[in-house]
Parts: sequence; C-alpha cells; structure tokens
Amino acid sequence: MTLKYGVIGTGALGGYYGGLLARAGQEVHFLFRNDYKHILKYGLQIDSVNGNFHLNEVKAYSDAQRMPVCDVILVCLKTTGNHLLPELIKPLLHPKSVVILLQNGLGLEEDLSDQLPEVAIAGGLAFICSNKVGLGHIKHLDFGKLIIGSYNVPDQEVLNLVVSDFQQTGIYAEYAPDLKFARWQKLAWNIPFNGMTVVLNTTTERLMVNEHTRQLALEMILEVIHGANAYGVDLKESLAQQMIDMTIQMKPYAPSMKLDYDHRRPMEIEYIYSRPIQIAKAAGFNMSKISVLEKQLRYIEAYRLEQ
Amino acid sequence: MTLKYGVIGTGALGGYYGGLLARAGQEVHFLFRNDYKHILKYGLQIDSVNGNFHLNEVKAYSDAQRMPVCDVILVCLKTTGNHLLPELIKPLLHPKSVVILLQNGLGLEEDLSDQLPEVAIAGGLAFICSNKVGLGHIKHLDFGKLIIGSYNVPDQEVLNLVVSDFQQTGIYAEYAPDLKFARWQKLAWNIPFNGMTVVLNTTTERLMVNEHTRQLALEMILEVIHGANAYGVDLKESLAQQMIDMTIQMKPYAPSMKLDYDHRRPMEIEYIYSRPIQIAKAAGFNMSKISVLEKQLRYIEAYRLEQ
Repeated sequence: MTLKYGVIGTGALGGYYGGLLARAGQEVHFLFRNDYKHILKYGLQIDSVNGNFHLNEVKAYSDAQRMPVCDVILVCLKTTGNHLLPELIKPLLHPKSVVILLQNGLGLEEDLSDQLPEVAIAGGLAFICSNKVGLGHIKHLDFGKLIIGSYNVPDQEVLNLVVSDFQQTGIYAEYAPDLKFARWQKLAWNIPFNGMTVVLNTTTERLMVNEHTRQLALEMILEVIHGANAYGVDLKESLAQQMIDMTIQMKPYAPSMKLDYDHRRPMEIEYIYSRPIQIAKAAGFNMSKISVLEKQLRYIEAYRLEQ
Repeated sequence: MTLKYGVIGTGALGGYYGGLLARAGQEVHFLFRNDYKHILKYGLQIDSVNGNFHLNEVKAYSDAQRMPVCDVILVCLKTTGNHLLPELIKPLLHPKSVVILLQNGLGLEEDLSDQLPEVAIAGGLAFICSNKVGLGHIKHLDFGKLIIGSYNVPDQEVLNLVVSDFQQTGIYAEYAPDLKFARWQKLAWNIPFNGMTVVLNTTTERLMVNEHTRQLALEMILEVIHGANAYGVDLKESLAQQMIDMTIQMKPYAPSMKLDYDHRRPMEIEYIYSRPIQIAKAAGFNMSKISVLEKQLRYIEAYRLEQ
C-alpha cells in the first residue's frame, strides 16, 4: 500500500521531512505560504548534513482548499498557529485519513480532537536541528530522529507504514507505543532549555558552564519528571542527570523557542509551558519553578516588540 | 547625652542620613573612598525632595584608621563589601560602641557578630529612594523612613537616642522591637522586585501592568511570607496583596539591585536571596520560586561584564 502525504506548514521541519519523502518517491503535497511562488519557479532546496538535495518538481499549493485528499497529513506548523488547523486540514480529509501532529508540547491532540471529533490523530516528535534560511531553502544542521505514536488512530498499520516510509528515506524513525510518554520525555529537555535561553538571552552551552543554571536546569527537568509521574507517565529521575550530561556534550545550538524569539516570531508558550503546568496541577503536582519561567516568558512575549 | 557618629560608606544612603545628622548639629565622621578629595574641596551636596542642602565642613576621612572612636557606627556600604567590615569598623570601636547595619537582607548581623564577637550590633532598614549622582553629590528622590532594631545591643537606650536624633532631622524614624520581623518584611518587597527588574530588564510599573508578572510577584511575596513563618516570624499573608497594591500606586522607579546592575556594580545576591533561601530551608520551607530567581541572578552576575 502506498500512502499519499500532505504537509501542512512547509518550513524547517515540514520542508525537511516532506522533502525526504518526496525524494524517496512518495507522493507528497505541500502547503506553502510565503514560499509558494518561489517554489513553483525554483523548487525546494535542502542543505543537509547527510547530503544536500534539490526537488525540482514540488506538488506545491498556496491554498489548502486546492489540495487533494491525503492518507497522511503531517502538521508541521508552529503550535502558535494551531487555531488555523481545522480549516487547513478539512480539505485534505477522507474517511481514513490520519493527521500526525509533528509538534512540541502537551494537549495538542486533545485540542484537535475537540475540534475534529471524527478524525484519526497521531502525534510525532522530531529530534532535529533544522532552520529555514531563505525562500524555499532549508538547512538541516544536526540530528533528525522521528518518533510517531497514536492518539486515537484505529489502525496502527498506517502508522507503521509511515514509520517505514521515513526509514526508507534514510533517517531513524520509530513507532512509539506510548505517545504521552514520548511527549513528556521530550518536554523534559524542551522546558528548561527553551525558556532559559530566552529569559537569559543565552545558549545551552553557557547555561551548562555556569553551576547555578546547570543546577536550575536539573531541578526543572526533575519537576517535569515529577509532573509526568503525577500524571501516570513513568519517567525515571535518572533521566534528569542524563539530559544534563547530554546537553554538556552537545554542540552549542539555539533551541527552537530561542530562534523564534530572535526572529521575532511568536513563542510556543501555551503548549510547551502552560498546558503541561495545568495538566500536572490537575494531577496534583505543582511545577512551581517551571511556572516562574512560564510567567517570565509571557511577560517577554507581551513586551518584546517594543525592545 | 550626645552621640558621636561614624558613617562607613558614604554613598546614596550614608551621605543622605549622615548628612541629615550633621546638618542637625550632630558630630558625624564620614569615611569616603573616591569622593574624599572632592569633599575636602567642595563639601557634600544633598538634593532632596524635602529641600536641598550643602555641608561645607565635613569631617571626612579616606582611611578608617584615622577616624576617632565613635558611639554609633552606621554601616551604609553595599553588602557586597561586607567582607571588609571588621577592618573598617575596628578603628572606630570603643567598649560601648554600637554598630548599626543599615543594609538589606538576612544574616548580616550574624556574620558580623561571628567576626567581632564582643561588639554590640543593631540593624537598620532604610525605605528610601536615593542615588549618588556625582562626586560628593547625593540625590534623594522619595521616601526616607528609617527603622532600627537591636541584634545584641545590651542597652536599648542608645538605639532610642539614635532614633530620636534622626527624628530631630525631620525624617520618620522608629525603633523596631523585632529586627527579624522588620528584615523579613522588607525582603517581602525586595526579593520579587529587585530580581525581576534585573532578569527581565524592566521597571516595577511594567511588572505590575502585565498580569503574569503581577501574579508571579504576588506568589514570590507569599513565598517570603511562608519562609518567614517557618522561621517563626509572624508575617501575615494579607501583606502580599497590600504590597502589590502599593507597588501599583508607586511612581515607577528602579530598585537598588536594578541600579547596581545598570551601573555594572556587583549585585547583593548573597544577603537578599541566598541567605534567606538557606534560612527558610533550614527552617523547613523551600522557597522554590525565589530560588529560580536567585540562580538566574547568579548567572547574570557571572556573565554581565561580557554583555
């Protein structure tokens, strides 16, 4: 069985992963915004640490209404645009379509399911360092692992097929039997490092060199772990020190929220901070240190354009 | 009985309060650092909302060793210089001298008492907005209340006399029967607003306009109150909302730590943050939100000179 793919939001993430599928011969329909005319003329250029490639003929659209129905809809928008999802997704749906939210945070699938109750939804997590550097031009700097898990997909076979399609492109992809676990685990890194690099206007490397922020990052990871535990997700405390050690080893790079901040794009505070805080609190655990970071980010978001 | 005063650290605070005493006819000996030669030549200029004045003949010193013994030694240094105190104070001591630490934070009297076990120590809290704007030039912008309380002063009469001397200068001064209570109460404002204006590079006014930082400030004041309560100091929870309301009414001005930060002076993190956190923790309460601010400030302190 061959799947027909739609990519909603063709930026750093959608351009890279969708581009890989298209290069491997899959049928991929891409929704663009600003890049549309450029793509028609020049195609899509991916500069990747694993080898550059160019797609001359891209099935490109500037309007979701004109897209065909697809078997798999990869949502690669920033979550700050999720209020637009129903309108962007509906034209692509057929009765067996699966929507995969390739986004960070918690509560994403729940919100979409409230808006589109009949639709099969999955979540995906991309462990990647990739930027859009110009019109129709993506730069993939590092990593690339993809994890996909079901929220309410009746037929797991489709997701296995998606994972297999990605594996065939040459990247590491896997099916996550527990999407909640995967989402909380990724948050354990995203929560301290996204917010702290923005609030302190710095890099992960500097945060790791300073003993105070290294300790603070560790404490915040532990808060995520305890929040997850309260919610019934079995993250281990030992993960905290592992993540610190991994971050010390990492080449310095800016987390996605720091890039959004630097480029004056909206920050994904709602799904990466506010919702996890609410979900943990409802489960009886108060992520109080993380709530400091959340409120500082909300303040910065409110005033950043004046700075 | 007439008291002979010594002022250690003649800046925004020592210059104003010492200057008031000298103007009222008290004998006041001032230790200067950079301002010494200027003072000898031009005297001390105080621009105050309550009326400007100038002191032509100032008992000025550039070296504590040359100062006479004094009955009352007013310590008006930033706490970041407290490691120098024993050496600066010793030359001024006679057997009945009282040292008054006119500084913010917790643990100040304890530290000095460890270093100078024989000395009578009191603490003072200045509710004032005052800056040094040039050599020998102090600008007093607002407020001015002074509270003085005993740490281990055997004879309370001396402190009553000091309070009375200050009252005669025209300012509001009072004896605090419970120094610990007064110190914690002042911290309840200093802790949220000093650190937040630095970390978010902003003003108290903007912090109060934004709902998230207004809420965060309230939560941090509550943490100070609960820390104080754990330590046996009876601050009421109702103080938190009162302080928020007061801050909303205040003219916008920069807390002292923000001024220190802006002028690239060391910040008083140790006595305003670290010690209160340690003291509350030893008493069984974890001021976890405040500890986030402390670590962020430690980071900023480590890297500020490069920015």
